[in-house]
Parts: sequence; C-alpha cells; structure tokens
Amino acid sequence: MTKRNEPRDYAAGGGLLNRRVLLGAGMAFSAASATGAAAARLEIPEWSQYPGLPMSEYGQPSPHEGHVKRRVLGLYPEGIGDGAGVSFTPLEELEGTVTPNGLFFERHHSGIPEIDPERHELVVHGMVKQPLVFTVGELLSLPKVSRLAFLECAGNSLFNSLAEPQQRSAGEIHGLIGAAEWTGVLLSDVLDLAGVDPSASWVLAEGADAAKQSRSIPLSKVMGGDAMIALYQNGERLRPEQGYPMRLVLPGWQGSMQTKWLRRVKVTDGPTHTKDETSKYSLLQKDGKAQQFTFEMGVKSVITRPSPGVAPTRPGLYQVSGLAWSGAGRVSRVEVSADGGASWADAMLDGPALPKMLTRFRLPWNWDGAPSVLMSRAVDETGAVQPSRAEWYEPWAPGQLYHQNAIQAWALSVNGEVSNVYV
Amino acid sequence: MTKRNEPRDYAAGGGLLNRRVLLGAGMAFSAASATGAAAARLEIPEWSQYPGLPMSEYGQPSPHEGHVKRRVLGLYPEGIGDGAGVSFTPLEELEGTVTPNGLFFERHHSGIPEIDPERHELVVHGMVKQPLVFTVGELLSLPKVSRLAFLECAGNSLFNSLAEPQQRSAGEIHGLIGAAEWTGVLLSDVLDLAGVDPSASWVLAEGADAAKQSRSIPLSKVMGGDAMIALYQNGERLRPEQGYPMRLVLPGWQGSMQTKWLRRVKVTDGPTHTKDETSKYSLLQKDGKAQQFTFEMGVKSVITRPSPGVAPTRPGLYQVSGLAWSGAGRVSRVEVSADGGASWADAMLDGPALPKMLTRFRLPWNWDGAPSVLMSRAVDETGAVQPSRAEWYEPWAPGQLYHQNAIQAWALSVNGEVSNVYV
Repeated sequence: MTKRNEPRDYAAGGGLLNRRVLLGAGMAFSAASATGAAAARLEIPEWSQYPGLPMSEYGQPSPHEGHVKRRVLGLYPEGIGDGAGVSFTPLEELEGTVTPNGLFFERHHSGIPEIDPERHELVVHGMVKQPLVFTVGELLSLPKVSRLAFLECAGNSLFNSLAEPQQRSAGEIHGLIGAAEWTGVLLSDVLDLAGVDPSASWVLAEGADAAKQSRSIPLSKVMGGDAMIALYQNGERLRPEQGYPMRLVLPGWQGSMQTKWLRRVKVTDGPTHTKDETSKYSLLQKDGKAQQFTFEMGVKSVITRPSPGVAPTRPGLYQVSGLAWSGAGRVSRVEVSADGGASWADAMLDGPALPKMLTRFRLPWNWDGAPSVLMSRAVDETGAVQPSRAEWYEPWAPGQLYHQNAIQAWALSVNGEVSNVYV
Repeated sequence: MTKRNEPRDYAAGGGLLNRRVLLGAGMAFSAASATGAAAARLEIPEWSQYPGLPMSEYGQPSPHEGHVKRRVLGLYPEGIGDGAGVSFTPLEELEGTVTPNGLFFERHHSGIPEIDPERHELVVHGMVKQPLVFTVGELLSLPKVSRLAFLECAGNSLFNSLAEPQQRSAGEIHGLIGAAEWTGVLLSDVLDLAGVDPSASWVLAEGADAAKQSRSIPLSKVMGGDAMIALYQNGERLRPEQGYPMRLVLPGWQGSMQTKWLRRVKVTDGPTHTKDETSKYSLLQKDGKAQQFTFEMGVKSVITRPSPGVAPTRPGLYQVSGLAWSGAGRVSRVEVSADGGASWADAMLDGPALPKMLTRFRLPWNWDGAPSVLMSRAVDETGAVQPSRAEWYEPWAPGQLYHQNAIQAWALSVNGEVSNVYV
C-alpha cells in the first residue's frame, strides 16, 4: 500500500499534488477507510421494509439538510425596514457551479415588492421613436435567449475590507454571489422595437421596489448582445426575491445594476446620476476622488473546501475545491497555494469554463497535519490576475469596500480548524 | 412598417424564418403591441409604496406560479402503493435547459425511502480485492467532479406508443426527463479503492427503496470516466425523491439504471438478470424476441412552445422553441417543420450544446393563421437522426413502449389550439 499512502507527485509545497492525480487510479483518499465483512453489512434497513413516501407536485430539500440555508443579515433593527439587507449564499455547503434558486443570495434596498404580474408593466420611453408599454404576457411572447452567468453584488466580500479578519464562513464572507441559467428577452430587441434615437448613449433602469433602485447603463452594454430582461432562472420563472416578474441581467457587471422588479427603461443622452450611483456604489480613492461608474466585476476566486466549518479533522488526502469567476470573460487558470503563497500549483478547471460564469476548480492535497495556509488565485482570459490584499488596497481610501476581489487566505490549524487570515 | 410586418427571409414552408432573424433588429414580434403615452403609465403602483417582504433562509416560487408543478400519475388506486408511479416535469412551462430540482420528474417503484443519512451505508463488494463500506460522510470526503447531464426514463413518451394520439401537454407526454448539474464521486474511483478483479465485467447496483430497484451495468461504462455516485444536484444535496443521500448518474443511459438511494455495488462477471431488467425494461421485438440490455437513450427532440396549452391566439411572429438531446453525445442539428414535414429549416442551438445534456433550440416563425403542423427532428454528433413514427415502430411488437424517440407533431388549429397528431 506504499504507493497509495505516500503520493510522490507533488506540484507545490504544503502537500499540493499534481492535478492529474485526481483522475488517476489507486489513490487512497483518507475517507475511504471502512473495510471488513461487507456482506455482513447487507441486512435490510427498516426504511427499505415498507413502501416509501409518495410523489409530490413541487419537491423540497431533505429535512436532514435544513442547516443549508441563506444567512440573513438585516441592516436595521427588527421591525424597521425588515426587507433591507442581504442574505448570503452558503457557498461552503454547495457544489458545482449552479446556485439553487432557493439559496441564491439576496440584496434588497426596501424588501420584496408584492407585485401582481397581471398588472405589472414595463415602460420603455425617453429618446425613442415610439414609447412602448409591455405587459408580462407580451414580454413572455417575445423571442427568448438563455445564458449561464454569475451575478455578484458590488459589495461582496466587504467583511474582508475591515481592519481585522472576520471569523465567518466562506458563504458569509463571499456569498453575495450566485450563478444561474437565465432566460429572457434581449434588452436590445426591446429597444429596437421602440427605435433608439441615434444621439442616445445611456439608459436608466428602475425597479418597482419602494426604494426605486435605479441605475444608469451605457447603451453599448445594453445593445451589446448579452443584456437581458430575464423572466426565468434555472428553468422556472424568477423567484420573488430575484425580481419576479422580470429583472435585468447584465453578465459580468455589478449586481446592483441588474435591476430587479424592472418597471421602466428610459433611453437618455447621459447618465442620470441616481442616488444608487452617487451616494452608494461609488468607490472612494486615496486621493479623495471617487470612481462613480465601476461596472465590471474583477477576476476572483475563493476556496470553499476546506473553509471555516468544513475542514478535515485528521491528516490525509483531500480535494481542495472552490469557485472562480471574472466579469471580463472566461477563467483561464486558477492556482492554489498551501504554504501561504510561497509556492503555487495549477488546479483543474472542472466543466466547460464558460465566460462570465462560475468555474469550479479542484486540486488534490496531502495534508500532513501541520498548520497550513490555503489560498487561491484566479487568472482570466484577458490576462488579469486576482490581486493580493496589498495590491487590491493600493488605490483606495480606508473604508472603501466595493469590488473587493483580493486573494482569500484560510489558515488550517493542527486540530483542523480553519480561520480567516490576512496575508 | 412594411419591413417589420412582412418578413421575407423565409427558411421553410409554413412561415419558418431564417434563424438569423432572431438576432436581427427591427422585427415586430406580434406581442410587442402596446404603445401610447408611456409616461402617463408611470404612476406608482401600490406595491411600490411600502417596504416589501423580508429576506428568507430558503426561497420558494412566486405564489402566482402555483400552476407550474409536476403532474403526478400513480400506478395503483389511492392508498395502495401511493409511492409507485411517475410525476412529469412540466416542460411547456420551463425555459432554458436546467430543470429546477423541485420540478425534476420522478419515477418510483416503491416510493421514497425515509433514509437516515447518519446510518445509510454504501457497500462495495463482489469481485474486489477488498470489500469496502462507506458512510455518507466518507463519500463526501472523496474527490468530486461535476457534470451537466440529462436523465431520461426509459419509458418517457410512452403515451405516444398508444394507438391513438393522447391529448396531453408536452410535459405529460415527454416530461419523464430532466437535466441538472450533478456533483459526486466517480464510480471508478470507488471501485479502484476496492480493487476490481481483472476477470470482472459487470456490476450490480441496488437501491435502498422497498422495491430494491436493481440493475446490471457493464464495467466499461462504470470505469469509463463519466459514471458518478452523485451527492449534489444543481449545487445542493440531492432531494429525497432523487435518491438522497446518493444515487448513480450514468450520463446518456436509461434512467432506471441510475440507481437512486444507492446502497450497494457488487462487482460481477456477468449481468445479474434482475426483475428490473427481465420482466421490465426489456423491449419486445416483432419477431417475438426481446432486447434485454438497451442502455443508451436515442437522439430526440420536442417542441415545447407552441404545444398543447401554450400556443398563440392570433397570427403573427413567434419563436418556436424546444429541447433536444442524445445519449450518444452532442446534439449537432435540430430541424423544424411547420408544414407537417414537407419542408424543414435549421433551428438555432442556444448555448454551449454540451454532450449528453439538454440543448435548447429556437427558430422564428411567422404564423399566418392557417392550420399548421409543427415538428422537430434532432441529429447528434454521431450522425444519428431522430426517427419518424413509422421508422421507430418498425422493429417493435405492438405495446412495446420503451425508448420511444419518434418525431412529435403538434397540429395548430385556426383558433390557436394545439393537439397531438400522428404524422
């Protein structure tokens, strides 16, 4: 069994193995431990001795998985503005790249409006030849397109902008992101029907929530072929908290621009400078100036296993796994370090690695039981590299917390506890 | 507006348009009708005038979408074997290619066993060097892979094997299929740990349901790199009705082999000839012989819109849309006819068209209001072509209903009603 228990194909320090090991045979991953008189274990359990539960019209998760839930964080005291806040996707409990709709993060500025889809309308107006009003049914009848894309809040990972590392789960730190297959109508098709004035250059998108969440979007993105009025998420109609009956999806861009409960699109000749792009969602620099329009989300990654709360308890062979993404296109490479950044190994990218979509990475790792610091670093197809904390902080004033995409470091102690550390 | 209302870029009879029209500008799709004093419509609806609903730990569909549900069809009278039967994915209500977990079809032989995941075990035994027993936690600790794949019941579309066309929805006829991103452990990794005897050639997989659903699987598929013990479906742990805590996923093969509630894998030197592959899931030929092992699902497609219950009510421009798949690999082409098969036009394949995964196709269509017969025909990368009804029936005895992949024809009447017709 020497071959099994002493892998030699190391790819970097701290026990990271060559990614091909994953596909090879004969690796004794630690957990495959139980052996013995297997046939003696084949008694019939009691749940196999009677007919089981019936079918159902709409399924739900196992009651044994009730701990897998969004972590809700209100911004105001209970009873006051309950609907304003965030709920985090529990990244460390999930696998693959598609986020189930029930666990897709929320960010509401004034709760979830109780829209009657029979009465909701989308108004297209401003610098157009012919203003148009669409019912939900009319939009549903237009030609549709589907696209897999991640959607990330501009304030994701904000806890990592605080002076001291917060001891929270991967999802509570980085879970203002999700990914889904969106289906809807191209925003360019709708604007083509209205006829855009040749001198127009931006649009204003406004939601039907009480906060009237409103953002300005350059016409180049709107007409660029991937901006969508989404009606479906992962096959079914949007959930109320994701903008039912319709929302914008702008692949790769800030979540706050992807207007939920979309009620109007106004074509303009410049940005509207709404409250949501001046007092909020603008980035203060060291020199006292602010960046107002920062659309594209940067290249980023996070190791989800191991991470706080989900970690090995004894030395052995494990798989390091996480998510990587970039608003600029495809993830081309993810490197992993198990020695705090002293050495790096290339992870395997699992799946088709689609542009502006979450990409799952995996790498085998032989943990010898010593304290370790695990990190991941993503590179996208434009060559952009995920920054270190120091590199990320360089341009910003203290307290700036949007577009936080610095490398995450997880420290593993000898007893298998994982903590958030700043490297 | 002549250009808008009289498209000229016809691709086939019955009003099918060139697929490039979809991406072009200025097409007045019929539903884009409402115009007028758009600004006057901008009064604030009541649901925008108060803070909305709060966040939640696990989201649910909109109460306005309660009609979108699985159609449950029990096989026995109420109260007797409630758990035996099927529930159909409502294909005509869904979009894209990913099936939401709550709406993924079911086929149970004896209901959903109420398994305690803390006590469930997977036994690997038979012709192996070392029999192994895995707890759920041990399997979760093994290296994982993710893969998008469809999963289709061998009995899908069985209603279309009846002598008279059944008037049911697209989902009720063809909805014993779903597609998901599956994550789990390669079955080959588990068998490598046990050490397969070189003279072994098959395995037996058995579920923990009361029916002990059991199938024989050739070792070539098991070790071929895509056979998986799935633990997650669309990011979250498997739902109870999909095999929680673990099931087999054998991309492209019959659903009944993809054992739910997997409890043992026995390595053998031949097929076991279980009840589920002799009296059931075997295909009777005209000559009185039966095909016992028919693993791979054929190349197939179905138009989901228009289809019974979801159809245009007035002439105009629409998008024809549907799903195509093949157990042999990628869908390479889908053709659509609007004149009962007299002429065909190539549909657009929307998305990455992954192997052994659902592929969404779309094509613009100018319905002139006359009776029409819509059909779709898929071709896969091996060159296999979806058969006509006559071609499909040719080898089989009357009553044979498995692997029904004949072309579906929908007849549209002048008043916009769609019916199932045999062409």
